[in-house]
Amino acid sequence: MAHLLSTSCSIKLSSSHRPLSQPFRQCPTKCLTFFTLGTSKSPFKRFVLQGGTQQASCVVRATVAPISQETPTQSSSDSRQKSSEPSKPKRVMVIGGDGYCGWATALHLSNKGYEVAIVDSLIRRLFDQQLGLDSLTPIASIHNRLRCWRSVTGKTIELYIGDICDFEFLSETFKSFEPDAVVHFGEQRSAPYSMIDRNRAVFTQHNNVIGTLNVLFAIKEFRDQCHLVKLGTMGEYGTPNIDIEEGYITITHNGRTDTLPFPKQASSFYHLSKVHDSNNIAFTCKAWGIRATDLNQGVVYGVRTDETEMHEELCNRLDYDGVFGTALNRFCVQAAVGHPLTVYGKGGQVRPWLNNNIAFLFHIAFYSTSLSSFINMWTNDNL
Amino acid sequence: MAHLLSTSCSIKLSSSHRPLSQPFRQCPTKCLTFFTLGTSKSPFKRFVLQGGTQQASCVVRATVAPISQETPTQSSSDSRQKSSEPSKPKRVMVIGGDGYCGWATALHLSNKGYEVAIVDSLIRRLFDQQLGLDSLTPIASIHNRLRCWRSVTGKTIELYIGDICDFEFLSETFKSFEPDAVVHFGEQRSAPYSMIDRNRAVFTQHNNVIGTLNVLFAIKEFRDQCHLVKLGTMGEYGTPNIDIEEGYITITHNGRTDTLPFPKQASSFYHLSKVHDSNNIAFTCKAWGIRATDLNQGVVYGVRTDETEMHEELCNRLDYDGVFGTALNRFCVQAAVGHPLTVYGKGGQVRPWLNNNIAFLFHIAFYSTSLSSFINMWTNDNL
Repeated sequence: MAHLLSTSCSIKLSSSHRPLSQPFRQCPTKCLTFFTLGTSKSPFKRFVLQGGTQQASCVVRATVAPISQETPTQSSSDSRQKSSEPSKPKRVMVIGGDGYCGWATALHLSNKGYEVAIVDSLIRRLFDQQLGLDSLTPIASIHNRLRCWRSVTGKTIELYIGDICDFEFLSETFKSFEPDAVVHFGEQRSAPYSMIDRNRAVFTQHNNVIGTLNVLFAIKEFRDQCHLVKLGTMGEYGTPNIDIEEGYITITHNGRTDTLPFPKQASSFYHLSKVHDSNNIAFTCKAWGIRATDLNQGVVYGVRTDETEMHEELCNRLDYDGVFGTALNRFCVQAAVGHPLTVYGKGGQVRPWLNNNIAFLFHIAFYSTSLSSFINMWTNDNL
Repeated sequence: MAHLLSTSCSIKLSSSHRPLSQPFRQCPTKCLTFFTLGTSKSPFKRFVLQGGTQQASCVVRATVAPISQETPTQSSSDSRQKSSEPSKPKRVMVIGGDGYCGWATALHLSNKGYEVAIVDSLIRRLFDQQLGLDSLTPIASIHNRLRCWRSVTGKTIELYIGDICDFEFLSETFKSFEPDAVVHFGEQRSAPYSMIDRNRAVFTQHNNVIGTLNVLFAIKEFRDQCHLVKLGTMGEYGTPNIDIEEGYITITHNGRTDTLPFPKQASSFYHLSKVHDSNNIAFTCKAWGIRATDLNQGVVYGVRTDETEMHEELCNRLDYDGVFGTALNRFCVQAAVGHPLTVYGKGGQVRPWLNNNIAFLFHIAFYSTSLSSFINMWTNDNL
């Protein structure tokens, strides 16, 4: 796979476009590069994707509403932790830890000394079977992945296989693992999948909304100081003709002013499910004091991380199909084999990107003292 | 029951408060009266609730985005229709037609000459059994209600008993009844119920969100010109410190301007479910051209309508308990029996009211040419 990701592939590249949001303009030290993705018929220029192992240069802006100072449990097992580094959670539950973002994150956190548990129903693998799809990279079973990780590093990642929509199962995992933080990737994450038919639209909204509700209730009931880091999407905001702010915007209207949730304009049942999640999470932060960080990140690309490079059985998945293959990954594979780029929509959308090496961002989220915060993440990542 | 609703009862009354929204200030002919509801310990002034049979004086403001002129089927059976009245749908499906708003609406529309079908799972009656609650007014079974309606008026209302979360059932009702319009009340409608425990929170969001998704898919699949009139709630907006606009607000931010969905701030899992619905509906209007009117109405009160007065077996339900008894109905009953008013929250919320005779508002919604419109409804209703 490595050669495919370093193969030259071409898409229309533009650095002169208006930034998506004011934060980019306000950032003097980071000069972001934006893509304008043309249709498959558009002429395009040469562009080389440089793999996934470089450290991303990243912009993270957060709106934080601290209520009290958080004092998470110190990780005694993290020998790499600097003395000046803030305290951090010790035990991290990665829901959806067998998936594309989840696997990279679980390994990264385990490597950094966290005690990690993966919670996953493995339904993502079933989708492949049902739709006749497969990862371009060969991926081992979750059991072999974890055995390999233990043999290579000596570190153990616990595994709980089940559906978080089943609250009894989720309760047992919380009582057994006692997480200090939950990183929640456990959602149906494809917009095209959610738009295939009614069954899949309903599945997506049910699975994502009820699963997240259950996580919120589990935190409230069993681990009320647990920090939830939830994967949202940049797509929650849609493409408004004003700068996108982090979660909230101050509006003056007819002589009065208030700071209100930034309007959302999702464009698929999947994106809508993330909006529903964000609204539910924000409410529980207010009502119950849940500590949550809602990440509205850009498109993730790449496949290799420091940890997945350690052994071939640790290899992450790479989807290039029309349902689960996200934009840049899919385009690179298509370009490599000479297939026209399949751009959804009008091809005029401007979006930033995140390297799959995003796990370090969850470190940042852990250090947040927020009771409820929204973080928008973008990166220029050596593009 | 009538004597109860005409019994003097007292709540703190204020007409000097700042209106909730600019529309009231802009309305020269209608001087609205606002309540400030104090806690049960607050002193209150004398106030007489004048029953539910008067025609409400109502403010309806809509943001309408017409795309094409709608020409609904003319009702040939409506002998009361004025010649100058716009055309309207002929066949109306009332989902949740056995409930508080649904029953009054179904009878009103049937009386006006529409061909009406009630679709209801009757689960609202099960909630009463499970929680040990009951309507203050004796209500007949849905079968006896409809038999009575036929014997009194000669008009037939069709009945489909089933759960709209079951798409096969809903599909059959659409194929059988072929509605020109759907009035959708078929949701779990109590905020306190949704906050009792996890099961009921999850039930509320699943039932409401999936049910509405199914209705949208049924319209798309079987009756793509069908007009959806959906009951939302004023509570979707929360209580922002700016004027509430109808669905959308124009925001100028950092030198650019866009008209975006008005920010929502729901305060219970029930209210959140309505926000989720609104987002889903707005998306399908854009994506599929669904004709929908999303009503964000104030609190409904009262029990008598012209139609329910025709026979005691047609009597509507009146809930006064802490779960399903809405504010004004509950307060009146509490005042009548000398029970302190049970005010939720801080007691400082300013909210308008809608007489249970709201069915005529659905007439207004039918005449909308909108592809997607939000209507906020309030009333002064002889208060």
